[in-house]
Amino acid sequence: MNSEPKNTEIGPDFTKNGGLLPAIAQDIENGEVLMLAYMNEAAFQETCRTGTAVYFSRSRGKLWHKGEQSGHHQTVEKILIDCDQDTILLRVRQHGAACHEGYRSCFFRECTDEGLQVVSDRLINPEDVYR
Amino acid sequence: MNSEPKNTEIGPDFTKNGGLLPAIAQDIENGEVLMLAYMNEAAFQETCRTGTAVYFSRSRGKLWHKGEQSGHHQTVEKILIDCDQDTILLRVRQHGAACHEGYRSCFFRECTDEGLQVVSDRLINPEDVYR
Repeated sequence: MNSEPKNTEIGPDFTKNGGLLPAIAQDIENGEVLMLAYMNEAAFQETCRTGTAVYFSRSRGKLWHKGEQSGHHQTVEKILIDCDQDTILLRVRQHGAACHEGYRSCFFRECTDEGLQVVSDRLINPEDVYR
Repeated sequence: MNSEPKNTEIGPDFTKNGGLLPAIAQDIENGEVLMLAYMNEAAFQETCRTGTAVYFSRSRGKLWHKGEQSGHHQTVEKILIDCDQDTILLRVRQHGAACHEGYRSCFFRECTDEGLQVVSDRLINPEDVYR
């Protein structure tokens, strides 16, 4: 986790998907899927270097150190890669809430025949974190 | 699971990402992340209608009924959506192997300082399935 990847032999293939690969964060303790964000090569290298999740914010067009504003960062314990080397799976220890809406996981709603149903409890009030 | 979504109020927002949203398949029994593929609106509706995972194959440019060739389909038990309504999470019962390389999960390799390490056992020989 401390060395930077030198080429695609040891990591994701950033020649794919325009250099922006989906990265899934999964809670290493209970297996919960917490969120999906994107990584460019710099974000991946910074994640490996720091041991905490760093994504590329598509809306802001720059690296996004997860938790930089909220303090709710992710300690990365394992990084897995899929067969096509174009999706990243992070097994993380989530500090606080992964979701900016205050839920532990961004996947707090289920699609049902009656519409979207909230299936999780809110951990925190987003207004207490994002001012 | 049997009705088709009428609008974004009850499902993913296919006006985002050029109409192609990442969909994570997670084993409902043990929480394992099995794969990531993409869905357009037609794939999502077909998934809801049939109760089995249907993706959009970017390489073939058409709907891909998971398991159509291998028989290794996914029964969809729950569909969750993230806060931004642009990522789909399927909780599925995986029949056979999710990965075309014969592993139960596509995430069978870990990125380590020594390169990619296989961390799962192969379930099947791909040559027995894909001829």
